[in-house]
Amino acid sequence: MKTMGLDSLYLVRPKIFPHADCTARASGADDILAAARVCDSLPEALEDCRLVMGSSARRRTVEWPELSPSAAADRLIGESELGSVALVFGRESSGLSNQELDHCHFISHIPTVAHFSSLNLASAVQLYAYELRIKSMQEEVGAINERPVADAQAMERLHQHMSEALIEIGFAEPDRSTKLLRRLRRLFNRARPDEQEVNILRGILSAAQNLVRHR
Amino acid sequence: MKTMGLDSLYLVRPKIFPHADCTARASGADDILAAARVCDSLPEALEDCRLVMGSSARRRTVEWPELSPSAAADRLIGESELGSVALVFGRESSGLSNQELDHCHFISHIPTVAHFSSLNLASAVQLYAYELRIKSMQEEVGAINERPVADAQAMERLHQHMSEALIEIGFAEPDRSTKLLRRLRRLFNRARPDEQEVNILRGILSAAQNLVRHR
Repeated sequence: MKTMGLDSLYLVRPKIFPHADCTARASGADDILAAARVCDSLPEALEDCRLVMGSSARRRTVEWPELSPSAAADRLIGESELGSVALVFGRESSGLSNQELDHCHFISHIPTVAHFSSLNLASAVQLYAYELRIKSMQEEVGAINERPVADAQAMERLHQHMSEALIEIGFAEPDRSTKLLRRLRRLFNRARPDEQEVNILRGILSAAQNLVRHR
Repeated sequence: MKTMGLDSLYLVRPKIFPHADCTARASGADDILAAARVCDSLPEALEDCRLVMGSSARRRTVEWPELSPSAAADRLIGESELGSVALVFGRESSGLSNQELDHCHFISHIPTVAHFSSLNLASAVQLYAYELRIKSMQEEVGAINERPVADAQAMERLHQHMSEALIEIGFAEPDRSTKLLRRLRRLFNRARPDEQEVNILRGILSAAQNLVRHR
């Protein structure tokens, strides 16, 4: 929960709480544990919630709309701007009872493979917490991060330098190595080097040129 | 892994394996553990892989393209249709070393909150396995890189050749140019050259070496 920015934990009739093992395992996140609210019943825990999402390992009847974790997170984050929302997990062994599911507006299900669907409670909580985190990060965590890259002029100078150097060291021939040089051009364009990397590459080319020149 | 439909586990120099605790915890998924391949080194484990994705808790330098778990899963699923792909995790305590990250084409990072970013290894694996499951269930997978690319072994030979050649032509110094060589390694990993391009690059290196040798 804490790694994903969540901090509001409600425990409904925990067998033993607090528990030394529990506190030990929460290393670094024991603040969340210490602030957990212990309730006598699920309805008590859900009192002020406008949206209650139940998580269920098994597909139940068709009576509930069933959402993917991603869709569930979407709903939860969306409605959290309007009031309290809850994501409810059941017991490690048996999940949520039908009576408990009755308090849920929606059921969400982690799409495990059919032949091995038993996910640990901790894993299930982690997956939902992660989906909530992703959705809450407004700015898309997008694909590739924005590395600074060398501008077109610097790249052009690199390509030019490479042609000259490869001819000078006898690896390429003027006029006859067009295809080869084009290939290298594409290769280095693909790498999207930054300015410093362009300088390193040109340094290597210069070192090779010096070998010829100072022969 | 098993709940998300994954079954190919490679272990690089595990401290103790098999281990009774490990087998006990894998209840129901012990088939995956039993079929795990134990390797002496990371390169051995990655031998035939066309795409190697490293997972890293920390944001490192800007030299690697860094992907979200979702984008990483997209890439992995997409390229898995063309050859073997690997998702690499480090140690529980310290993650992947820089030397290990050198074998990766991309780095992926779970977007935890800044002030509490330490995710268990098991949790991290679970999140990626889940993202892979989600992507594999989608009919339309993202941009597939259709290009054939050189395998990890060929890339390793290129990096080795480059180190030797740069030292030979006097551009790098043994022991003192580690950072420079790492930078170049990452640059060329990023470019994802195909086998022919690797040969061209090695041809250039050989040409430069010949200049020194036939002086």
